[in-house]
Order: sequence, then C-alpha cells, then structure tokens
Amino acid sequence: MLEKTNQVNLLFDFYAPLLKGKQREYLELYYLDDLSLGEIAEMHEVSRQAVYDHIKRAEKQLFEYDQKLRLAQRHEKRMEVLARMSELVNELAEGETRDELNTLLHQLSEMD
Amino acid sequence: MLEKTNQVNLLFDFYAPLLKGKQREYLELYYLDDLSLGEIAEMHEVSRQAVYDHIKRAEKQLFEYDQKLRLAQRHEKRMEVLARMSELVNELAEGETRDELNTLLHQLSEMD
Repeated sequence: MLEKTNQVNLLFDFYAPLLKGKQREYLELYYLDDLSLGEIAEMHEVSRQAVYDHIKRAEKQLFEYDQKLRLAQRHEKRMEVLARMSELVNELAEGETRDELNTLLHQLSEMD
Repeated sequence: MLEKTNQVNLLFDFYAPLLKGKQREYLELYYLDDLSLGEIAEMHEVSRQAVYDHIKRAEKQLFEYDQKLRLAQRHEKRMEVLARMSELVNELAEGETRDELNTLLHQLSEMD
C-alpha cells in the first residue's frame, strides 16, 4: 500500500493538471492529505462509494497518462544523470566554472 | 502559418500519444506529412469537412494539454541551460571528466 501511495503521489505531481475537478480533488485529499474515504464523503456530503469511484477512476487516469507520456520514468533517468554530473563537477578545481555548473545543475533538477 | 506549423509540430512531439486515433492520424498527415485537407479526405474516403474538424479539434487539444503541463516550455528552458553548460564544459581542460560530462549532457538533450 505504501508503495502504491508513493507511486500515485509521484504521478500526481506530473499529471494532476490533466485530471478533472472531483477526481483531482478527492485523490488529493485521499493520497496527499491522507484523509479516509469516510472523511472525504462527509466533507463533501456524498456517499463513500462515490468518493471511492472518483478516486479509482483518477488513479486509472494517472497510470494511463503515464503509460502514454512516461514523464515519471524520464524524470527519474534525468535525475540519475544529474546526480552523476554533480559528482563529476564537484571533483573539478574550485572556481567560477565549477560554481556556475553547480548552479545550472541545481536549476535543472528544480525544473524537473 | 509557418509559425503555427512549427508550434503544432513541437506540441505534437510532446502530446501525440494523448490524442485519439483519427485526430492524431489526420493531424500527422496534415502537419508532418504536409498533405492537403483534400488529399487526406480522399485517402480516407471522408469529407474534407470531417478532416478539417478532426484537425481543428486535435490542435485545440494540443494547446490545452500544453497549457496544463507546459512540457514545451520546460523543454526549451532545459535546452537553454544545457547549452550554457556545454559551453562551460568545453572550456575545461581536455580529459576524462570533460568527456564524460559531454556524454552526459548529450544524453540529457536526447532524453528531452
């Protein structure tokens, strides 16, 4: 369950803007804010089943988007490359070039 | 028109997998293969209007996806950073570190 939570959280980071209103909202409350189905149902005055259905559909959507665009996988690969570059850069002699390269590496990882 | 063609081509690179069958197919024939609406209509034995509608809808979809995910913009920014890093790396003394950094920079730009 924890692994699935992490996976959904990761995919949510990439694809949340593509999800529709309620799907996105309930998924966020359930996975990111860690509310129970019952709590979300009460908060929105809908049935627990309705919340469950929205969340299941949203999860499915996230996995489908990722199967098509592979953003999570591409992100992970880029991060690996950046980590190796960071090692190499830090082996360089201290100086402006090393500093600027580190700044740019940092920018790249923040952008991702 | 040329600018729009370029823009659609760029967005197509990022979001094509999200487009539905006919929309993707006609858009590809029109923008990437440079066929006319009439030629596509004839090839698929549908009306010119049907082809036009699919293409317009597909274009709209691409722009909507990009408004939500901003992949094209993020790509462009990453490319700028990589270009600057490449300059800096090439100013380093020749050697294994420089070579590996160049290889990794190349990998990053290919991945994007």
